[in-house]
Amino acid sequence: MTDAPEAAVSDDFHVFDTTLRDGAQREGINLTVADKLTLARHLDDYGVGFIEGGWPGANPRDTEFFQRARAELDLQHAQLVAFGATRKAGTRVEDDPQVAALLDSQAPVITLVAKSHLGHVELALRTTPEENLAMVRDTVAHLRSHGRRVFLDCEHFFDGYALDPAYAKQVVRTASDAGADVVVLCDTNGGMLPAQVTAVVRTVLADTGARLGIHAQDDTGCAVANTLAAVDAGATHVQCTANGYGERVGNSNLFPVVAALELKYGRQVLPPGKLTETTRISHAIAEVVNLTPSTHQPYVGVSAFAHKAGLHASAIKVDPDLYQHIDPALVGNTMRMLVSDMAGRASIELKGKELGIDLSDDRELVGRVVARVKERELAGYTYEAADASFELLLREEVSGKSLRYFTVESWRAIVEDRPDGTHANEATVKLWAKGERIVATAEGNGPVNALDRALRVALERIYPQLASMELVDYKVRILEGALGTGSITRVLVSTSDGRGEWSTVGVAENVIAASWQALDDAYAYGLLRAGVEPQA
Amino acid sequence: MTDAPEAAVSDDFHVFDTTLRDGAQREGINLTVADKLTLARHLDDYGVGFIEGGWPGANPRDTEFFQRARAELDLQHAQLVAFGATRKAGTRVEDDPQVAALLDSQAPVITLVAKSHLGHVELALRTTPEENLAMVRDTVAHLRSHGRRVFLDCEHFFDGYALDPAYAKQVVRTASDAGADVVVLCDTNGGMLPAQVTAVVRTVLADTGARLGIHAQDDTGCAVANTLAAVDAGATHVQCTANGYGERVGNSNLFPVVAALELKYGRQVLPPGKLTETTRISHAIAEVVNLTPSTHQPYVGVSAFAHKAGLHASAIKVDPDLYQHIDPALVGNTMRMLVSDMAGRASIELKGKELGIDLSDDRELVGRVVARVKERELAGYTYEAADASFELLLREEVSGKSLRYFTVESWRAIVEDRPDGTHANEATVKLWAKGERIVATAEGNGPVNALDRALRVALERIYPQLASMELVDYKVRILEGALGTGSITRVLVSTSDGRGEWSTVGVAENVIAASWQALDDAYAYGLLRAGVEPQA
Repeated sequence: MTDAPEAAVSDDFHVFDTTLRDGAQREGINLTVADKLTLARHLDDYGVGFIEGGWPGANPRDTEFFQRARAELDLQHAQLVAFGATRKAGTRVEDDPQVAALLDSQAPVITLVAKSHLGHVELALRTTPEENLAMVRDTVAHLRSHGRRVFLDCEHFFDGYALDPAYAKQVVRTASDAGADVVVLCDTNGGMLPAQVTAVVRTVLADTGARLGIHAQDDTGCAVANTLAAVDAGATHVQCTANGYGERVGNSNLFPVVAALELKYGRQVLPPGKLTETTRISHAIAEVVNLTPSTHQPYVGVSAFAHKAGLHASAIKVDPDLYQHIDPALVGNTMRMLVSDMAGRASIELKGKELGIDLSDDRELVGRVVARVKERELAGYTYEAADASFELLLREEVSGKSLRYFTVESWRAIVEDRPDGTHANEATVKLWAKGERIVATAEGNGPVNALDRALRVALERIYPQLASMELVDYKVRILEGALGTGSITRVLVSTSDGRGEWSTVGVAENVIAASWQALDDAYAYGLLRAGVEPQA
Repeated sequence: MTDAPEAAVSDDFHVFDTTLRDGAQREGINLTVADKLTLARHLDDYGVGFIEGGWPGANPRDTEFFQRARAELDLQHAQLVAFGATRKAGTRVEDDPQVAALLDSQAPVITLVAKSHLGHVELALRTTPEENLAMVRDTVAHLRSHGRRVFLDCEHFFDGYALDPAYAKQVVRTASDAGADVVVLCDTNGGMLPAQVTAVVRTVLADTGARLGIHAQDDTGCAVANTLAAVDAGATHVQCTANGYGERVGNSNLFPVVAALELKYGRQVLPPGKLTETTRISHAIAEVVNLTPSTHQPYVGVSAFAHKAGLHASAIKVDPDLYQHIDPALVGNTMRMLVSDMAGRASIELKGKELGIDLSDDRELVGRVVARVKERELAGYTYEAADASFELLLREEVSGKSLRYFTVESWRAIVEDRPDGTHANEATVKLWAKGERIVATAEGNGPVNALDRALRVALERIYPQLASMELVDYKVRILEGALGTGSITRVLVSTSDGRGEWSTVGVAENVIAASWQALDDAYAYGLLRAGVEPQA
């Protein structure tokens, strides 16, 4: 079921993903079983070696996940891992229902969490140091005797090591001797720094000879560096989560760890060709867990290779490699020039070039575009995230005429709450297109949706191309948050015609008016893109 | 003007902030001069040693900043720094207007940026290696002869060192010999890893004897670790930005660097007592630059000490120190127990305790609360960020009665776009309060604002306590972004009564209805807080 049909990557180094278990602890994430199955497919597609799916028996959702995984997942690269704890103190491992649930999950690999910190053994586990070692020994041996591969997570290892290094190492030795393939040193509260991690991992490796892994949390902002620091010291198994999701600050982020290993260490840890999927997989996973992808995430963020400074923009024209640590294409990302009031003429020219408009000969035109961008950004617009609105602005300046397909006379949106708690949303638009005055009314599930529908009803006969376009994303940002609902509202809309996507922006004192502007730009750009001649 | 009246922190180690210059390169940040002055006050209040204010002469805003700083800033701890470049190739330093602008700024400290990478000298600067050294020598000496303290930023140092270590070190020596107090090794494209940084800094320090600084960018996700790695190797000057703002992925984040130096290295780098201001300053700065504070930022994020897992929640009752790498109070943050469907009864009990409600004796009640939270979260509500809505839910379950002050019959909001481009926003509410039926209509600058006003018009006579309450923040999140404007909308509202702030949540198929729910909870909670007896 979950055995990888062909291991494209050697077992000598493990990329172990725990997004489905430890990543799900992040504030704001709530995964359904279907979400977990989808995430597992993305992670397998990316090529990680192990996917820790959850704790069967600890909650019904995780038990169900392993059941459905057997039937529904067809993993190509990864092995599925079940997570659980060592047996309870003072019981026989054969009688522990939690351990039985791990076997019942039928996962070929099991990660056991164990205590290696005497304070936790005494205060949280309420047992003796000796019994804790017996719990490790018995549980590892029991799972091995049932044919499972076993990894052992030493919870709070680094703090435990600081308190009593001999005991911490004894836990490592006990697990290794009992048959655990990898003993994972966990910085559970995330307080470590790289130099400390390197020193501890090096000593533990020398003193125990066990195969070691690392599990880092990001509480000092050093989780990626701590993971690499452990690899520097000889660890050959790294536990990460996609986008660094995890409790508190988060876990070690899978993507920069993998990118550093492949691009900086020259160590192949994914199947060939998969590194270029990094950006796509990162964003797809953010979509599934319903979090906005971090724009500033290393390697994969939309800003990760975006250049804003006027100084750099001029030099990048000479040689982009001088200003980027890697070619963004290696991780499936792209370089972007930002349009912003920080940027000078050079940036606008480069942006024009990106859009296929040569501006290098017209200094006066470039000056006009720079001035208009500055004025609009002052009013709250942002063109960094609204390429289509910027292109409309630029093309209107270049052509010297309005690129519009209709003129709006007025519109109105009504939201009505009825005594039974349902809502009615109705919008009316009055506009002129190709010399004709059109009035249309539509309902929707919200006022913006009603306006969008009314606009389409009004225009679809005249511009049938609109039928293929649909809104695919809609973001609202309140500027000047200290003013309550009296603030300025910025709306960003993404629209797709099935072949591509474009983003537009609207700014107004209320969300409906701002949405209207973004819709107006979205359809104007879509029609321009479809090759329709502008004619208001 | 900008000299620190009493240096509370030794000059032996520099915390150098460049939020106002390099941080401003972040995509999405556009600072006015007033913003920069406010940021400088916050950074000085925090106690950094140096504040790099911008590049006088390069843009009018930065020139104006230094002018106004002289009149308006009264810095207690920090010295103001002007940033600029070495003289142009083939000119006399005395004739260079950009260098003159640095002196004109009257900043007591100047950071010069210089090339130390032969590729950049040739391709970007278009001059010879020898002339580049002369530019460094001349400019440092010129500024020193005018009584300025000079730091030199070696741009792209680490790549330059890899290409030609002898030349890179020659730039360091030249600057140091000419009188630069600190030579800052910059990982400008952010591609380095900590072990490499430690090795290079150690060698350059041994070979040149210059005082070294570090400027790290976060492109590998290791900027904080790289900064500390340079300190490990003997650097005594760290350049950072608040919240890690900066171009592409960002710069080394001031707060985790300072926290690590003080709490992990035991090195005092801020004036006594200032570390506990970390969280407040971080959030205040996010407010000024108008970016939502990162919830998952190390040390200062609202999630940084938030505990979600049921497993941990039960153990934290025993001893919180076992689960946190530092006491959050040291950086002005607090531990939080999250209410979430991941959490079990232990979390709800702890949360109740936080609110002063003892739930430990009523298992049935706790079970009911857990069930209701799960059901609401499934529908899109989040109580993690809406403590007041959760408290209302909890108190209603505990008291077994509705904690409401009015009953709504219906409401209506109308947004109308007029032919002249202005908008009319009008709302009507019909409700019952203390047995009286009230109908009120109001206008606003948006539909939510109009609804808010109509609600206040209707209720203020009956509940005069509402007069002291105002909305201070309003956030909109579209859930299931793939469905365009047909998605579910979640609104979070923060309300203040001048003595405290509380947050409430609303979820509906449209933004107006969701806002209404959040307002409804906001005023109910505010009245409860004011000690008014519920009575619908």
